[in-house]
Amino acid sequence: MGPIGLIDGKIIDLGEKVLEIEDRGYQFGDGVYEVTRVYNRRPFALNWHFERLHRSLCELRIPNPYTFEELTKFHDQLIETSGIGEASVYLQITRGVAPRAHIFPDQVVPRLTMTIQPVKPTDDLRASGATGIFVPDERWLRCDIKSINLLPNVLAKQRATEAGAYEAIQVRDGWVTEGSTTNFFVVKDGVLHTHPANHLILRGISRRVLVERIAPRLGLKVVEEPFHVAFAKGADEAFLSATVTEIMPMVSLDGVRIANGKPGPVARRLIEAFHALIAEECGVKNQLQAASLKRQA
Amino acid sequence: MGPIGLIDGKIIDLGEKVLEIEDRGYQFGDGVYEVTRVYNRRPFALNWHFERLHRSLCELRIPNPYTFEELTKFHDQLIETSGIGEASVYLQITRGVAPRAHIFPDQVVPRLTMTIQPVKPTDDLRASGATGIFVPDERWLRCDIKSINLLPNVLAKQRATEAGAYEAIQVRDGWVTEGSTTNFFVVKDGVLHTHPANHLILRGISRRVLVERIAPRLGLKVVEEPFHVAFAKGADEAFLSATVTEIMPMVSLDGVRIANGKPGPVARRLIEAFHALIAEECGVKNQLQAASLKRQA
Repeated sequence: MGPIGLIDGKIIDLGEKVLEIEDRGYQFGDGVYEVTRVYNRRPFALNWHFERLHRSLCELRIPNPYTFEELTKFHDQLIETSGIGEASVYLQITRGVAPRAHIFPDQVVPRLTMTIQPVKPTDDLRASGATGIFVPDERWLRCDIKSINLLPNVLAKQRATEAGAYEAIQVRDGWVTEGSTTNFFVVKDGVLHTHPANHLILRGISRRVLVERIAPRLGLKVVEEPFHVAFAKGADEAFLSATVTEIMPMVSLDGVRIANGKPGPVARRLIEAFHALIAEECGVKNQLQAASLKRQA
Repeated sequence: MGPIGLIDGKIIDLGEKVLEIEDRGYQFGDGVYEVTRVYNRRPFALNWHFERLHRSLCELRIPNPYTFEELTKFHDQLIETSGIGEASVYLQITRGVAPRAHIFPDQVVPRLTMTIQPVKPTDDLRASGATGIFVPDERWLRCDIKSINLLPNVLAKQRATEAGAYEAIQVRDGWVTEGSTTNFFVVKDGVLHTHPANHLILRGISRRVLVERIAPRLGLKVVEEPFHVAFAKGADEAFLSATVTEIMPMVSLDGVRIANGKPGPVARRLIEAFHALIAEECGVKNQLQAASLKRQA
């Protein structure tokens, strides 16, 4: 079977033509999305994804066309039909189809589309550590909304790739905000530092897992305050967090080696705790995950 | 016949499902667009629209899949098939369909979609003058690219509509940039003032017609420098320019009446000259246009 998707509850072949030109997602980027990581056929932190989805929809005043129970069912359907147990599930809701005009249309029906794809393991990169470059943050001022207006993120990621780096870390007015598809942390004297979850960054779910569940468990202090590029380059450690990336240690920024150029001890502890949490929540049993956990531990 | 569209050269019913979920236009807003005004079955300033389309595509490194001759032919096809002589033609090019990942995919084929709709005359509003409110400019920092990442514009326009105003004029760091779908001008002591065409605004085609063709013809000086909200509120006149809106006099801003609260003499001269130019280029003959020209003159 080829790749599959889902539109408004119905499973389809991913290549199927299912959308009209005047879907506002297509002409305005008028929609929001979530990407959820599935381990061992079970979505991780799904409720927090739904909570954020709900917030994004509210901010744009798009009514949620489905209950969380229905959305959970669609997740399960995609996992089951595709047979992909280690997956990322993409979920998008747009305002719907209406004659093109900027203002919100009356009586429009929001549209749900979903896809599922297998996740390629990034354990090797996690072991060696990734590289980043700093780029200007050119995004709009509502980065807290997880909208499909992603062109600046696309351009930033492309810039990183062409520079041979894994991620582009964005900088606004001298302050480090976040990566193009990740949140960004540094460690200094045992304390985690990351940009506050205001309108200038997306409040990542993995960031939230780190700040609210893992850091307290490990007795680590988190300071959510903006910091400069120089502070990041002089840090003891740096790492990214994101749903598919999980926690990714950074070993150089703009070509400047971070500490000794290897993943640091705090990042390694966080990765271990993160994987333990996944194992608890998703009952990880399969070989790939077990091997991964073992390697990290 | 119902509304029609066009996809990659083929005329379709507008409601037809012709797009895949993984069109990058749908998941990233990874595409650009143009809206061209058709008078008397002839597109106005089409070459300048194509020139800007070309620039937008270059900035995003999307290869233009069609020559200007082909795109002109598609315009003509839409006008002819729909039978709409007073129209706006919408043209969008996205990077194409590829498995979802931020970085530019290899070997992707850009996709063209177009629609046509009749233009409702706005002469009555033009005669009485429109109202505006100032709103924070929350857009990204590459407003010079006419991309389909239009969510901030949508939200600004919606805000104006709910405030009972015609347009939301955006303000960044105290400087007036432009309307949500229009460029913004004020007149002070006979001189036109408008934001420079840098990365913070879209270089509108009607703006360009005004600055490069009409102002010189009328011997009017144009100053392209940023100005503050207070300067706009204290101006002798204010007006918007855009392809479908053409030139729209503003008679109040944030509830503050501009001069005597009626369209000013400079705006009226510009409207007249603009319509004369349209008549020259598009050979306006039909009754609607003739009546409109007469009323404005």
